[in-house]
Amino acid sequence: MYEEVSEFYRTRGFGGRVGFGKRPAVVVIDLARTWLDESSPLGSKNLGPVLSNTVRLLEAARTNGHSVFFTTMAYHESDLAGPLGKKLLHASAGKSLAAGTSLVELDGRLGRRENEPIIVKPRASAFWGTAFDAHLFARGIDTLIIAGCSTSGCIRGTAESAHNLNLHPIIVREAVGDRSPLAHECNLADIDLRYGDVVGLKEVIAYLGKTSPAD
Amino acid sequence: MYEEVSEFYRTRGFGGRVGFGKRPAVVVIDLARTWLDESSPLGSKNLGPVLSNTVRLLEAARTNGHSVFFTTMAYHESDLAGPLGKKLLHASAGKSLAAGTSLVELDGRLGRRENEPIIVKPRASAFWGTAFDAHLFARGIDTLIIAGCSTSGCIRGTAESAHNLNLHPIIVREAVGDRSPLAHECNLADIDLRYGDVVGLKEVIAYLGKTSPAD
Amino acid sequence: MYEEVSEFYRTRGFGGRVGFGKRPAVVVIDLARTWLDESSPLGSKNLGPVLSNTVRLLEAARTNGHSVFFTTMAYHESDLAGPLGKKLLHASAGKSLAAGTSLVELDGRLGRRENEPIIVKPRASAFWGTAFDAHLFARGIDTLIIAGCSTSGCIRGTAESAHNLNLHPIIVREAVGDRSPLAHECNLADIDLRYGDVVGLKEVIAYLGKTSPAD
Amino acid sequence: MYEEVSEFYRTRGFGGRVGFGKRPAVVVIDLARTWLDESSPLGSKNLGPVLSNTVRLLEAARTNGHSVFFTTMAYHESDLAGPLGKKLLHASAGKSLAAGTSLVELDGRLGRRENEPIIVKPRASAFWGTAFDAHLFARGIDTLIIAGCSTSGCIRGTAESAHNLNLHPIIVREAVGDRSPLAHECNLADIDLRYGDVVGLKEVIAYLGKTSPAD
Repeated sequence: MYEEVSEFYRTRGFGGRVGFGKRPAVVVIDLARTWLDESSPLGSKNLGPVLSNTVRLLEAARTNGHSVFFTTMAYHESDLAGPLGKKLLHASAGKSLAAGTSLVELDGRLGRRENEPIIVKPRASAFWGTAFDAHLFARGIDTLIIAGCSTSGCIRGTAESAHNLNLHPIIVREAVGDRSPLAHECNLADIDLRYGDVVGLKEVIAYLGKTSPAD
Repeated sequence: MYEEVSEFYRTRGFGGRVGFGKRPAVVVIDLARTWLDESSPLGSKNLGPVLSNTVRLLEAARTNGHSVFFTTMAYHESDLAGPLGKKLLHASAGKSLAAGTSLVELDGRLGRRENEPIIVKPRASAFWGTAFDAHLFARGIDTLIIAGCSTSGCIRGTAESAHNLNLHPIIVREAVGDRSPLAHECNLADIDLRYGDVVGLKEVIAYLGKTSPAD
Repeated sequence: MYEEVSEFYRTRGFGGRVGFGKRPAVVVIDLARTWLDESSPLGSKNLGPVLSNTVRLLEAARTNGHSVFFTTMAYHESDLAGPLGKKLLHASAGKSLAAGTSLVELDGRLGRRENEPIIVKPRASAFWGTAFDAHLFARGIDTLIIAGCSTSGCIRGTAESAHNLNLHPIIVREAVGDRSPLAHECNLADIDLRYGDVVGLKEVIAYLGKTSPAD
Repeated sequence: MYEEVSEFYRTRGFGGRVGFGKRPAVVVIDLARTWLDESSPLGSKNLGPVLSNTVRLLEAARTNGHSVFFTTMAYHESDLAGPLGKKLLHASAGKSLAAGTSLVELDGRLGRRENEPIIVKPRASAFWGTAFDAHLFARGIDTLIIAGCSTSGCIRGTAESAHNLNLHPIIVREAVGDRSPLAHECNLADIDLRYGDVVGLKEVIAYLGKTSPAD
């Protein structure tokens, strides 16, 4: 039902295609147990396909020598002073993101390799309060392939930041998800109108296969 | 119909209240002709009440000595290289934000005073690529009252940044708007769940009236 | 011998006093073994007084309820790709900043308390690639008292960032140091001309004693 | 006399070479009248060779199709609230950087072309409070050739930021200058130890000549 927004916005010149650039990297946002496990306060019940599609995406990236990054979040008690702790991190949710716990460790199925950096991000966007931009400059990246969760929070925040920086943000449709299907749908539409291209997994894998690794 | 998202997310610990802080400032986002004039490519047809409510908000802020900021956008041709120009700024839209044109000048009804800074922001958020954070530190601000347009773009982007910085983001319900009522509704709900409190104009005006100006 | 620079620059309008603000915090830069231990590649031989003066500063801050922050650095191998690793971090120096080693743990004499955040900074400035600005907004800080090492690197970088953000940067003369006395002298002069006030420990302690804690 | 600092720091693993990257751009820092004119409060008396060497650098860049950027500064009265105005901008200096005056316009001998962006930077570093990083990502830049003034302020600040971002910062020895020869010497040494390579004009021109333009 959000199609009316997309259609109207497109008549006003939004929603152009940024397309793929020349030097891609993949970033996997927040696929750790606290978000993947349905029984966790921050968990979703529907992220199984997101995880398996991300694994397929990673295989394509690694086979072709492209850079891979992961994010997670991890708070110490002293990080939660102020509005941050009031808005997002009730007592239970604060514990769900505690530094040093297995809840915030990456899911083992992602098979992270030692040369693939983990960005421990303090907010939704992978760029805010981190050195992620410097990691991308170091590798000559111009295209950021985005997978993980949640569409209405960290995926959107990361896509907006990548847009701000004039990277080509590519959001992999089948490899992103949200606790709420409706929030997923609406935010994916907004992202496509304003920040990055929402592209199918098959097309992204084909692109990764035919593109030389950056630097 | 986005209520189901809000309700579900609240069960998971999102949507806490940040409340008002002690030292507020008001920022008015993008109330210039290119967004206010229905006949402009970037314009909306429904922002009359947003403008008049913003004028009421400004009166309360100024009467009580609180800081006021405005934003606009203004591009030179050489700013549009890369993905930015492809996603948002078709030929017509690029002209709609051209530096030095009256399209991007603040609406006269806002009555901007000379000591009220204009932040010329290159992206959605008032903070990205600007010195807005430094303006707030200089004045000891801890609470950012946000008005203007558009809810699904620059309002949400600014609210997320204010949240990132641990300011108290307060979005004035009757003083923000969007080209699309549905995009407005969904994004206002997301903002309230994740980044800042959506509060009625009357309550905000009362708060401004009883609060001493910062520093 | 750098006095001629200071004198000349002052004739041109540099070197004004920012003075103390109203709501201070103390940040202690990089007082961990890798910098304090003379036998470490990154170590200095002359930081004993810097450490003991910092301890006196901390006592004054804590007695009066002011916020305290610490920084350190900690790299994983995958963080060192690109120019960063080439300029600063030869094989031996890279090991000197390895995450998870005791080399980068704060010196025990600082007596860090659990509510005093440690900012793990990836570069010289405590602000770059961190959420330090958000920590300061959360606590309403307007004045940053800076101690630690090294004057020509992390102290100067942090003072410049604090200046950028319109904080009042106060560098505590007897509580900052460098591997090289000459680098210390020249950089302290530049900082005082351009970014923050270099102030004696006694005056800073008196200020902390008579100032109410922020928020 | 700062050689002792360089020598000592090099024994500790500082001062490695970052070398040239693959995709360069040139940035010319603050070559406007307010800095170039000896009679201006912010002016220097010795920047003639810096300007003429920068013109030679620009010719090499343009002949080979490399991207070129310029910076200047320009304040409105309302930008000067807080510590910024107290430290750097006495009454006379504030006027020396007033927005809309010819003082802050680029020197005509630079021959700026319309597609060469001007970054109006609010602080020393070309990156702080600007979209300069996004301009570089849009063009795939990995190497930043830095010219202009002043070595102890905006050159050093820009070089540190470029280092932070993992760009290859290359400072052109004969094309940077300072009000004070001693401040120039000491800061150039610190930059070379910590942030970027100080390289002769001839070598930089040769590199630009043999390198394909980025993207």
